[in-house]
Amino acid sequence: METILPIALGADHAGVALKDMLRDALDVPFVDLGTNGPDSVDYPDFGVAVAEAVASGRARLGVLVCGSGIGISIAANRNPAIRCALVHDVTGARLAREHNDANVIALGARMIGTEVALEAVRVFLATPYLGGRHSHRVVKLSPDWTETP
Amino acid sequence: METILPIALGADHAGVALKDMLRDALDVPFVDLGTNGPDSVDYPDFGVAVAEAVASGRARLGVLVCGSGIGISIAANRNPAIRCALVHDVTGARLAREHNDANVIALGARMIGTEVALEAVRVFLATPYLGGRHSHRVVKLSPDWTETP
Repeated sequence: METILPIALGADHAGVALKDMLRDALDVPFVDLGTNGPDSVDYPDFGVAVAEAVASGRARLGVLVCGSGIGISIAANRNPAIRCALVHDVTGARLAREHNDANVIALGARMIGTEVALEAVRVFLATPYLGGRHSHRVVKLSPDWTETP
Repeated sequence: METILPIALGADHAGVALKDMLRDALDVPFVDLGTNGPDSVDYPDFGVAVAEAVASGRARLGVLVCGSGIGISIAANRNPAIRCALVHDVTGARLAREHNDANVIALGARMIGTEVALEAVRVFLATPYLGGRHSHRVVKLSPDWTETP
């Protein structure tokens, strides 16, 4: 039987409520890397943790939430194996997968509503990468990175 | 007399028209790193070029445009000296400066209208970083980076 890799979830205190809503609404295996309460935390810690889970192959894709989505997406993109797309709607979620082969989606809990966020993540998880003319551009996003076999 | 550093501009073929509009509408010194025509180019090349211009101190801030803003923002954030915010409106532009001390703004030419883009860039260029509780989080975005004196 094929093992289905989980989706890695992460958020800071501004994003935890949306992260928990997404976790409960999505019918997919997940690994929740926190945060798990209202206490103030640092968004880079969770961006780094989800990036490492995806880069190591422990998770198939990642979902990150902070207040604007900006800081946590920057943190994830420091990892050369990660292509994290900050998304504000379904269109961005689709393009992130189709054109950029994004493996992490970032959302701003204070920027978009819960239904928009949920539909964007559903589209992100379901949309395949188109490849083709996009491939050599995607390779240029990680010029120094080699996948470990 | 104090030298005013320019704003570095960059875009791919999908973003060149918006990049040129912003360049002509903004009353600021700029360095335009291309692209400068309709021929198909690779967005990472322009994300990297603007990132290097800002990281080296040749430019004060950067503005990047591609179709969705996603790919070109990932490319810029590979540079540890860069905090590139993908922005969809004025609110994102303000928060990117206030909370994340973002030094590059990325826009999706196919995602937002020209007036929204222009006002977002104006707000981005004019908004100061708040510092304070945000500072140690911003430091965590570039843990291995040391500014060259």
